[in-house]
Amino acid sequence: MIVVTLVSVLVMILQLPPPNAWRMNASQYSTRSAASLGVRRSATSATGQTGFQALLSYLSTSGRMPNLPPQNFNAGLIQMSCGPEPEENLQKALVRIGDAAAKGAQVVCLPELFQTQYFCQREDPALFELAEPIPGPSTEQLAAAARRHGVTLIASLFEKRAPGLYHNTAAVFDADGTLRGIYRKMHIPDDPLYYEKFYFTPGDLGFRAFDTQSGKIGALICWDQWYPEGARLTALQGATILFYPTAIGWYPSEKAEFGEAQYDAWRTIQRAHAIANGVYVGVVNRVGFETGNVRGNVAPGTGLEFWGGSFVADPFGRVLAQGSHDREEILLAEVDLRKLEDIRRNWPFLRDRRIDSYAPISSRLID
Amino acid sequence: MIVVTLVSVLVMILQLPPPNAWRMNASQYSTRSAASLGVRRSATSATGQTGFQALLSYLSTSGRMPNLPPQNFNAGLIQMSCGPEPEENLQKALVRIGDAAAKGAQVVCLPELFQTQYFCQREDPALFELAEPIPGPSTEQLAAAARRHGVTLIASLFEKRAPGLYHNTAAVFDADGTLRGIYRKMHIPDDPLYYEKFYFTPGDLGFRAFDTQSGKIGALICWDQWYPEGARLTALQGATILFYPTAIGWYPSEKAEFGEAQYDAWRTIQRAHAIANGVYVGVVNRVGFETGNVRGNVAPGTGLEFWGGSFVADPFGRVLAQGSHDREEILLAEVDLRKLEDIRRNWPFLRDRRIDSYAPISSRLID
Repeated sequence: MIVVTLVSVLVMILQLPPPNAWRMNASQYSTRSAASLGVRRSATSATGQTGFQALLSYLSTSGRMPNLPPQNFNAGLIQMSCGPEPEENLQKALVRIGDAAAKGAQVVCLPELFQTQYFCQREDPALFELAEPIPGPSTEQLAAAARRHGVTLIASLFEKRAPGLYHNTAAVFDADGTLRGIYRKMHIPDDPLYYEKFYFTPGDLGFRAFDTQSGKIGALICWDQWYPEGARLTALQGATILFYPTAIGWYPSEKAEFGEAQYDAWRTIQRAHAIANGVYVGVVNRVGFETGNVRGNVAPGTGLEFWGGSFVADPFGRVLAQGSHDREEILLAEVDLRKLEDIRRNWPFLRDRRIDSYAPISSRLID
Repeated sequence: MIVVTLVSVLVMILQLPPPNAWRMNASQYSTRSAASLGVRRSATSATGQTGFQALLSYLSTSGRMPNLPPQNFNAGLIQMSCGPEPEENLQKALVRIGDAAAKGAQVVCLPELFQTQYFCQREDPALFELAEPIPGPSTEQLAAAARRHGVTLIASLFEKRAPGLYHNTAAVFDADGTLRGIYRKMHIPDDPLYYEKFYFTPGDLGFRAFDTQSGKIGALICWDQWYPEGARLTALQGATILFYPTAIGWYPSEKAEFGEAQYDAWRTIQRAHAIANGVYVGVVNRVGFETGNVRGNVAPGTGLEFWGGSFVADPFGRVLAQGSHDREEILLAEVDLRKLEDIRRNWPFLRDRRIDSYAPISSRLID
């Protein structure tokens, strides 16, 4: 009764539409099966908002409350190929940021190390010349693009931190061009044709979620995608979506036999991060066959066919947008915090975590 | 040269076949793409074993070394339905253990709480009468079945630990009938029709891998399957396979709209545990529509349709054996430690874990 009265007073004060237009739909809280671990429709008003969300939205836009993050936004993933000339790759990316914004993207993510072909196919000290400080010339242009197009931007860079100290780093720019922060790749791979341990010092900033105009955004990088710990630690900071700029592909001689299974495992584990944490996941890979050609300096070896296949998954692990294996494209998907809330209520995994028992996860092995 | 000489001496001493029959195939260590994150064939001899494995196997069977765990074994999953009479369910399970053994299973797993219909559809203090101490009358019969059929057995039980203190517990029996240990379900769900927090005290033994004649076996239970932490902590103890006895199903009114996505999310996250940890995963669910009928004591509510769909995934997340949604059946799949080793070498995730940075996983939220 008190609630009803308070609501009535608010309605009068704010001249909101009558309560029945944004009343909580009782069925939202009706008995349902945990069996279902229900992905169910949110109860929404005719305007597509629940009552509380409508109120928040009204207060926010009416200037009566400080700005709140939006209830939803469009993520834009730029799946692109990379040529031998770094400046051309950067210019292409800047154009594509505008293209993504024109399609309605509000948060845009580029692939890993998009300014060059994947140079880690060999160990060549001369290639450290590709690295730049942050902030630096590239981040200036990226920040300007974010500001010009009004988009939050995740851009992967080869960071020069000090002489002899380099990182594989994601920079997060807000929609006004401000650099919100950086994430330095924590898990560094090293395998034939992926000699990353030669180039990149493991990150020392930990896992991070960044405050942006679209709310909290997580940024991780490629090899991180195989580690549930990185996803968990980013999600626990409040990220609503985890972005994974990536450079992964097929070894030509193995593609026929193992290619499909490799791609499926990669997609599966990242969809699982979405499910385990109740977050969206956006994975942005490059496409194209590359020899690591950087201004004519080509790597020995057979080259790599980057498998594209960028995608966005919702907190239920369902794929909302799916890229091809061989074409440049821009993927768009809506990140809807109402859906995220609904799915987490129906799959309350965070409620039951046994945090008293997880400490040994910091062991190398329990032997 | 020293190696060659030592090998020659061993060959003479042990009267093994000549070295060329079990020599390491050089191609196993040839350059390959990390891109591929290769699932590749193990280099094997004509007998299907690598040199070192053949040597170990020979030494083991010749009695010149202590027994080593086998290089491979067959897992058998008993997907079954459960009726109103607990004693009948137990007898059915005992028969099925023999059936699985006859099919070649060496490690057998039963579904969660297979002795009853899923009674947690309501909160009824009288149902605590179903619980039994461990060891107790049921474990005696299960141990005898394990010994009789020579199989390692994972059996889920309603454990009475003390008056007013009950657990959802998996007992692990070795192939000689010895009780190797118990695992008490760590993550306890509570949702409409899944009122487990009423019945089960959260486990206090942590996550566990058990030493058996088939090597290290992990046992977790149902709701644990949504937590990457539980899978990781069990795998870090050396488990080669994680078993998940399970009772999960559809709420009839939601099945048409959400059923497929729910099942897919459940399967996806468990396949991801296999991928992340380089282990096999075996998930054993019940089938059938149930009203929680225990000797005629029926739960209110609409009942649950348990979705079966038991499966075994390999360390690459590939499904090796797949159960139906609606039939009782016994699934068999080979757990091959040579394949596990090969996949982990090609996907060296354990190598690069950032154990210096994972401690905050023990936080409820990082806010």
